Amino acid sequence: SDFGMKSSYVSQMKAVAISMTDAHLIDITHEVTPHNIREGAFILKTVAPFFPMGTVHVAVVDPGVGTSRKGLVITTTSQILIGPDNGLLIPAARLLGNYTVYEIQNPRFMLHRVSNTFHGRDIFTPVAAHILNGVLFEEIGPVINDYVKLDFKEPQVTNNTATGEIIYIDNFGNIITNIDNVKLN
Amino acid sequence: SDFGMKSSYVSQMKAVAISMTDAHLIDITHEVTPHNIREGAFILKTVAPFFPMGTVHVAVVDPGVGTSRKGLVITTTSQILIGPDNGLLIPAARLLGNYTVYEIQNPRFMLHRVSNTFHGRDIFTPVAAHILNGVLFEEIGPVINDYVKLDFKEPQVTNNTATGEIIYIDNFGNIITNIDNVKLN
Amino acid sequence: SDFGMKSSYVSQMKAVAISMTDAHLIDITHEVTPHNIREGAFILKTVAPFFPMGTVHVAVVDPGVGTSRKGLVITTTSQILIGPDNGLLIPAARLLGNYTVYEIQNPRFMLHRVSNTFHGRDIFTPVAAHILNGVLFEEIGPVINDYVKLDFKEPQVTNNTATGEIIYIDNFGNIITNIDNVKLN
Repeated sequence: SDFGMKSSYVSQMKAVAISMTDAHLIDITHEVTPHNIREGAFILKTVAPFFPMGTVHVAVVDPGVGTSRKGLVITTTSQILIGPDNGLLIPAARLLGNYTVYEIQNPRFMLHRVSNTFHGRDIFTPVAAHILNGVLFEEIGPVINDYVKLDFKEPQVTNNTATGEIIYIDNFGNIITNIDNVKLN
Repeated sequence: SDFGMKSSYVSQMKAVAISMTDAHLIDITHEVTPHNIREGAFILKTVAPFFPMGTVHVAVVDPGVGTSRKGLVITTTSQILIGPDNGLLIPAARLLGNYTVYEIQNPRFMLHRVSNTFHGRDIFTPVAAHILNGVLFEEIGPVINDYVKLDFKEPQVTNNTATGEIIYIDNFGNIITNIDNVKLN
Repeated sequence: SDFGMKSSYVSQMKAVAISMTDAHLIDITHEVTPHNIREGAFILKTVAPFFPMGTVHVAVVDPGVGTSRKGLVITTTSQILIGPDNGLLIPAARLLGNYTVYEIQNPRFMLHRVSNTFHGRDIFTPVAAHILNGVLFEEIGPVINDYVKLDFKEPQVTNNTATGEIIYIDNFGNIITNIDNVKLN
């Protein structure tokens, strides 16, 4: 998420989660640059393959919260992705493979009182808990195809030049790009 | 807490906790502005209602550590609050309702060697673990009424004006105040 | 570690850990000044004694990753330390006592594809998981004695003066030094 570590937003979501499930909770990061969907999507895509089969990811970088943007549950070969319909989940879904996008519609799986500004706590976390508890995806909402796409441009690699996109700069000053090591070999 | 994420203070407390209990540990925040009791009290009050029945909260924003300020265990309708007697716990206690304040006196529930500067590790965490393990509140110390009170001023709401208090500014630049949405409806 | 909280490095390690073991994961800190081995060593030494018997620590402050520096497993009286051979683990090992240093050599306990830049994820975490799952230290690699030593200078204490080394400055502005309270008494 882009919630930062100071506010109680993250722990509000965790409190809802532990009230509904005994899942093991792992933080990926809450230090995504606020509202930077591409950065969040890149981090999620990078880390997701290391998680075990059956992991449910809740990702929230959500400048459109409170508008009519949809909420999504995406099933893949091995893991589940939940979050806003703004592209955040798509690169990870594509990497994990064989994905299906459901729109969250059934209010039965949300908190009773859904705020306009905190769907992470009121919708995405309860839906995640219900999925961990065995709810069928079909009960959550319909499969859709008109979700928001997001792609990282393919880097251009020639004999002696690689041209790509800077995603972010890490703690060591490493410039993280979309140029995959494999492509350079 | 206001410990920050760099030092090992938080993990010293967690190490003591896991040595004594198998409770699930959730961080609310450790980024309270150092020594800002009101900010810490506001965050604790905001997040506490989302936690499940039986949760034990240990909260430490404690400029008076090492002086004669007391340590408290507060029981409420549904959850337990533990921390210094400086007002930090009171707004959450009032919100959770039906609260009783015990002063921590019994050295049997503290670490053997209590430092003057780290009651979070040496007193509050071991007391929390003992409570999770079934110790009776009466064994910890007496009920008191002369604890330090802390209140957020009631916001003033008229037809077209709301006047309140700024508590802090979140990661998105939202100014968090004591003006409750409900009061504006 | 010195990974910071923004990147997914920490969660990549945790994802590997939960894929291999159901151990309880506790973060000490990820905010060590990048590449500051002495600071990391000091924090690890400070917090380790509070952890319970059998704890396995994975510590990564590793400017030499990708060079020929070794990886270590250190057994002590009560806990296990895993990380790079650059001195990071030694003050904690010495404090915990009765320690033996093994060099990690057996590729069977590493991820299949070991990167040049992330031994925390590809070597140290899987080795930690295998140890938690009961692998014998002798299977991991040989005992060595030519590991990198690291020592904090002994502070000089006279009747009315103590001279020591500043390690870091905490969230409250406290200057943390190597001058032990006990020595002043």
